[in-house]
Amino acid sequence: MAKEEYAIGLDLGGTKILAGLVDRTGRLIARKQLPTHAEEGEKAVIERVLSATHDVLSASGIHPEKVRGVGIASAGVINSDSGEVIFASNLGWRNVPIGTLIGQRFGLPVHLFNDANAAAIAEWLWGAGVGTRNMIYVTVSTGVGAGIVSDGRLVLGRDGSAGEFGHISIDWNGPQCRCGNRGCLENYASGTAIENAVSRKLASMKEPVTDRILVEKGELTAKVISEAALAGDPRFTEIVKQAGFYLGIGAANLIYLFNPEVLVFGGGVMNASALLLPEIEKSMRDRCIPGLANEVRVVTSQIGVEAGVMGAAGGFFENLYCKN
Amino acid sequence: MAKEEYAIGLDLGGTKILAGLVDRTGRLIARKQLPTHAEEGEKAVIERVLSATHDVLSASGIHPEKVRGVGIASAGVINSDSGEVIFASNLGWRNVPIGTLIGQRFGLPVHLFNDANAAAIAEWLWGAGVGTRNMIYVTVSTGVGAGIVSDGRLVLGRDGSAGEFGHISIDWNGPQCRCGNRGCLENYASGTAIENAVSRKLASMKEPVTDRILVEKGELTAKVISEAALAGDPRFTEIVKQAGFYLGIGAANLIYLFNPEVLVFGGGVMNASALLLPEIEKSMRDRCIPGLANEVRVVTSQIGVEAGVMGAAGGFFENLYCKN
Repeated sequence: MAKEEYAIGLDLGGTKILAGLVDRTGRLIARKQLPTHAEEGEKAVIERVLSATHDVLSASGIHPEKVRGVGIASAGVINSDSGEVIFASNLGWRNVPIGTLIGQRFGLPVHLFNDANAAAIAEWLWGAGVGTRNMIYVTVSTGVGAGIVSDGRLVLGRDGSAGEFGHISIDWNGPQCRCGNRGCLENYASGTAIENAVSRKLASMKEPVTDRILVEKGELTAKVISEAALAGDPRFTEIVKQAGFYLGIGAANLIYLFNPEVLVFGGGVMNASALLLPEIEKSMRDRCIPGLANEVRVVTSQIGVEAGVMGAAGGFFENLYCKN
Repeated sequence: MAKEEYAIGLDLGGTKILAGLVDRTGRLIARKQLPTHAEEGEKAVIERVLSATHDVLSASGIHPEKVRGVGIASAGVINSDSGEVIFASNLGWRNVPIGTLIGQRFGLPVHLFNDANAAAIAEWLWGAGVGTRNMIYVTVSTGVGAGIVSDGRLVLGRDGSAGEFGHISIDWNGPQCRCGNRGCLENYASGTAIENAVSRKLASMKEPVTDRILVEKGELTAKVISEAALAGDPRFTEIVKQAGFYLGIGAANLIYLFNPEVLVFGGGVMNASALLLPEIEKSMRDRCIPGLANEVRVVTSQIGVEAGVMGAAGGFFENLYCKN
């Protein structure tokens, strides 16, 4: 089989490191997960990343010569050209040349991706974006981000920081965000926003002791809230649906700017897609010229927790860049 | 000289038709302007478009075989693939196959562009965007629009309608726009918005009879207001600067989504760029993560009224599309 049939994807998360060996049809041939333990420091984490990479290579039985490269999906600010993670708060990393280190150890080309871009590649190649040339993947989890495919190319911008969808303002006079902007979408429609809205609501109600304990212990997470909302808890359904309303407002902005064929929503908060997706779609369609919005499909992601690994690897199978 | 050294650009405006023969260095070799007289109907306008095209070819002395194609810049909704102007309110056109007609008459390939995209191409090839790979051209005139170059490619979207920057919402709860959205940027920061703000202001003041006459006659246009503001008329300077403030809010959204190297502002309202540009830049920088905004240049367009013609022609000199 030709060299370009395989690639390795690495997903550097705050709680786990996930490595996978992927073929160009999107099959995950080998997979290795290790805890991140970022508190042990950068060197220990790097060792685990190298070890996970080595393990998937061994487990797969694929000769490294048949592997096209290693793609790395990381949260935070990355520099694809230098192979560095510039800043990742979930890892506690600043200017870590992880790409160079992996390249040296395995003798393979390495490419870094922002995690939303990696997931977008996976959805575009093998998931909900198959067959389209203009797709936007939106991740709704702690924050909100996007990976944008325009005419078959990733919109990366000057240094790969494009797609910061969570920080577009949907209210120029809204509350100040830590980024400096006001009224940022993710202050209305992220996991964090949902958790904050629930805390405010519970504080104003006479709540069962059990719920108060959950809040105090910080365990009333967006995930728990979503589950409760899906189960029909009326205190939570409206808050989750409200997040969908705001996501639809942001989605309308995306449609005006990018004229996509499909919007794909993923990320942990979309576990409540049964509640969220109809709201997203309604407020988006209410706010767009019908001619623009009619043909836009609004769907949930098809690739699960491995989207980062698969997309980071997938970047080696498609010419996603225009460097002519 | 090789065939691809020349192209014809046509700019279909509500008041004038402008045709030009352009070489690949951006030289306008021949130029022909005719009044549109849209009120005479579609057939008469088409005849003038054909005549202007013929005239620039003749005047240039260039053999049609040396001309690569005809690019058409039009306001409104266009379909590049079918060569039709689907809807252009300034021309009163619906489903006019102008591309096909020109192609048949002159035996040349034809491509239609939205007028903001055409101007963006001109600025990118020969104007304020030279040397960049990520540029956004923003036109501020009656409305607000954008032409977006991402990694050396035009962001066109599914059917060429991308870049509708004037209709992104900067206030989800703002006033209803005719497009269906609320709080659209162009309701805060276009020529029309400036005219409306001035009318409201004058209505609330005891104004000189001369100004009242101007308002009644509809002659207190954004152009006149801009000139008066530039001349220091304090009733108008604040209103014009306020438009700049809102444009900067929109610009911050563009930076988060596209991570560009340069933002180029053009269009009639930018005649007041001495007032507008500092305001745009200030509110944009106030609202962006410094790392993202620091290296973004904010400049005025360099190519004047011929930007539509030049960009429509320029589309034949560069591979602006990813169709791989």
